[in-house]
Amino acid sequence: MLEVEEALAKVLERTRAIPPVQTALGPAALGRVLSESVASDLDSPPFAKSLMDGYAVRSADAANPVTLAVIEEVAAGATPTRALGPGQATRVMTGAPVPTGADAVIPHEQTELTGDTVQLRRAVKAGEFVLGRGREMAAGEVVVPAGTVMTPTVIGLLAAVGRTVVVAHSAARLAVLVTGDELIEAPGVPGPGQIRNSNGPMLTAQATRAGAQARYLGIAGDERDGLRELIRAGLESADLVVLSGGVSAGKYDFVPDVLRDLGVESHFHKIRMKPGKPLFYGTHDQTPVFGLPGNPVSSFVGFELFVRPALRKLGGQAIPGPVFVPMPLAADFAANNDRPTYAPAWLEATPSGLRVRPAPWFGSADLRGLARADALIRLPSGPVSYPAGHIVATMSVN
Amino acid sequence: MLEVEEALAKVLERTRAIPPVQTALGPAALGRVLSESVASDLDSPPFAKSLMDGYAVRSADAANPVTLAVIEEVAAGATPTRALGPGQATRVMTGAPVPTGADAVIPHEQTELTGDTVQLRRAVKAGEFVLGRGREMAAGEVVVPAGTVMTPTVIGLLAAVGRTVVVAHSAARLAVLVTGDELIEAPGVPGPGQIRNSNGPMLTAQATRAGAQARYLGIAGDERDGLRELIRAGLESADLVVLSGGVSAGKYDFVPDVLRDLGVESHFHKIRMKPGKPLFYGTHDQTPVFGLPGNPVSSFVGFELFVRPALRKLGGQAIPGPVFVPMPLAADFAANNDRPTYAPAWLEATPSGLRVRPAPWFGSADLRGLARADALIRLPSGPVSYPAGHIVATMSVN
Repeated sequence: MLEVEEALAKVLERTRAIPPVQTALGPAALGRVLSESVASDLDSPPFAKSLMDGYAVRSADAANPVTLAVIEEVAAGATPTRALGPGQATRVMTGAPVPTGADAVIPHEQTELTGDTVQLRRAVKAGEFVLGRGREMAAGEVVVPAGTVMTPTVIGLLAAVGRTVVVAHSAARLAVLVTGDELIEAPGVPGPGQIRNSNGPMLTAQATRAGAQARYLGIAGDERDGLRELIRAGLESADLVVLSGGVSAGKYDFVPDVLRDLGVESHFHKIRMKPGKPLFYGTHDQTPVFGLPGNPVSSFVGFELFVRPALRKLGGQAIPGPVFVPMPLAADFAANNDRPTYAPAWLEATPSGLRVRPAPWFGSADLRGLARADALIRLPSGPVSYPAGHIVATMSVN
Repeated sequence: MLEVEEALAKVLERTRAIPPVQTALGPAALGRVLSESVASDLDSPPFAKSLMDGYAVRSADAANPVTLAVIEEVAAGATPTRALGPGQATRVMTGAPVPTGADAVIPHEQTELTGDTVQLRRAVKAGEFVLGRGREMAAGEVVVPAGTVMTPTVIGLLAAVGRTVVVAHSAARLAVLVTGDELIEAPGVPGPGQIRNSNGPMLTAQATRAGAQARYLGIAGDERDGLRELIRAGLESADLVVLSGGVSAGKYDFVPDVLRDLGVESHFHKIRMKPGKPLFYGTHDQTPVFGLPGNPVSSFVGFELFVRPALRKLGGQAIPGPVFVPMPLAADFAANNDRPTYAPAWLEATPSGLRVRPAPWFGSADLRGLARADALIRLPSGPVSYPAGHIVATMSVN
């Protein structure tokens, strides 16, 4: 059976970033990935700038403590009117331009002003407390490389270099549909053998949290024509389609049959993992189609492990993950699983640092045990018994 | 001068959660805080359920390995038609109801079927591999307490108990305006003494990332009437107003004058911290008003340390933060600051776990050094020289 890592490689090798578009730098740009490299159009700072309130001096004058003539005072936002000659100093405020001729600033508390002269209490070296013109960024220099995720600080930096529109990958459009004759939508009351559909709302919210434009198409039931129409609607409107249910046990042949009729090529339908072994992955032209098991925990884990990296790659991210980081357990933990396991867990901020606590778990239908989960831990197959503090591979799903 | 912790306490003690409203469980509910406790309207599972493919038995029969008569087979989704009598067993699939009379399940690989009888290879204890009715959640039991942040799994759980609408706090509405005659909006080209406004776009995006409904009102300049109109527009339309610039040095008296004219009561305007010492905080009726220093790093840090916790409290979060967690440094680090310092940094996933790397930093105007920052580290005043691996208090800002 396919290992998780192999399955993930199969998914990512077939997933292409959606074409970039002109994107305005508003709130919708947040989290999107730049597909162009952006250069500064100016030097910053635009002049050599003082980093302290003090005196701009010529370091050649100040190899020893000396007394200099103060010729001018320059506030932040003002411009020096006089170049600095030998034996001269200019009073400068933090952020003010340093006058021509000066190459260093000495903080005023290390000086003594008497009338129009200032005595330096120490020697000054070239460059001290001066930020040279273009030192933060020079005109023409790339300041935001292609592939950068647009965070608030990146958006600020793009504005600083004059950009209000950039070329970036859009958020992927994702369609969610669920299958199963036993499902009813809330707020309906389940009759015997019926259960409420929780995967539709959960997966739609997972996709939204992942930055996708998520659209929920509804319950297909187990009737072939209705399922076909719903999947077709997803394929026509979305960059990625997620089905929940209908891939395990007796139903298995039915959903893949319909997918095959619609031209979806199957790449795998079983993974050596727990929960979520019967996970279907196929493509329709370039559109990824995932069939997640109907149990809530299996759907949740399958989404975070496989669908979310595919969404990241569609959105232009170079390293789509999933990223597992070693993290100490918050409590003793024992388990015995016959396959590599991805168990719901949550992170806790403790006085010793972050710790991960496995969620109580009654089985793959247990939504309540899942409710606090904001992480997954990876466990090997077979019996494990770990003390608190033992390091486990942990993925945040926030 | 006020310490950061005192300033934060002053902000939070005056901040009240905005009134909760009926909220549909769509994508907009994500991240919002429930203000009601939600109980389950049903038992889950609705029947005692088998956790394995195997045989449902009476544990009283099976204190020793015995042979039992198989009377029925029950698939998942089906219902047993016969109660289990002494000496009998029912074949059950994972998820199927356990028949009346049975109190345990033995996995089929620990049995041997011969015709209509099954031989158990071991003794069976009461309760084994059976999830009792209502064990995940019982009708009437609170499954999502008031104060819970709505994540995808919580949204799934709410759907499972029949909810499509809940009572929750809305996202806070936040207005951003910037002051400063030297500012121009991108894509304009700065003349001498002018700089582009990067704080407006950055702070608006920070507020959006924090889950607020952010509205950018523009540049007020340093003209009193224009500033007054813009602040008034913010106070009328938002739950929290953020000004950037105009609170330090010579401008200081001007912005607070206008705020006072508008009925904003000042609570503090200086904090013993770096960057961002001249941070103004006041209230207009119950609306918090923050004046952040105009330097980008100061604005960024002031927002994450003070405005974001206020937004969380407005949104109904019980623990509004900021939360600092001990984290090892990724590299050697030295600094010498005259006040407690909150330095931009970023988290790195390493084979040894998460590490935090301080951003290169040329001063409080340096947006470029800030661009990768997704964390802040807290440093004491005075000289510090830490080796890689040293533990520093770290706050994630993602």
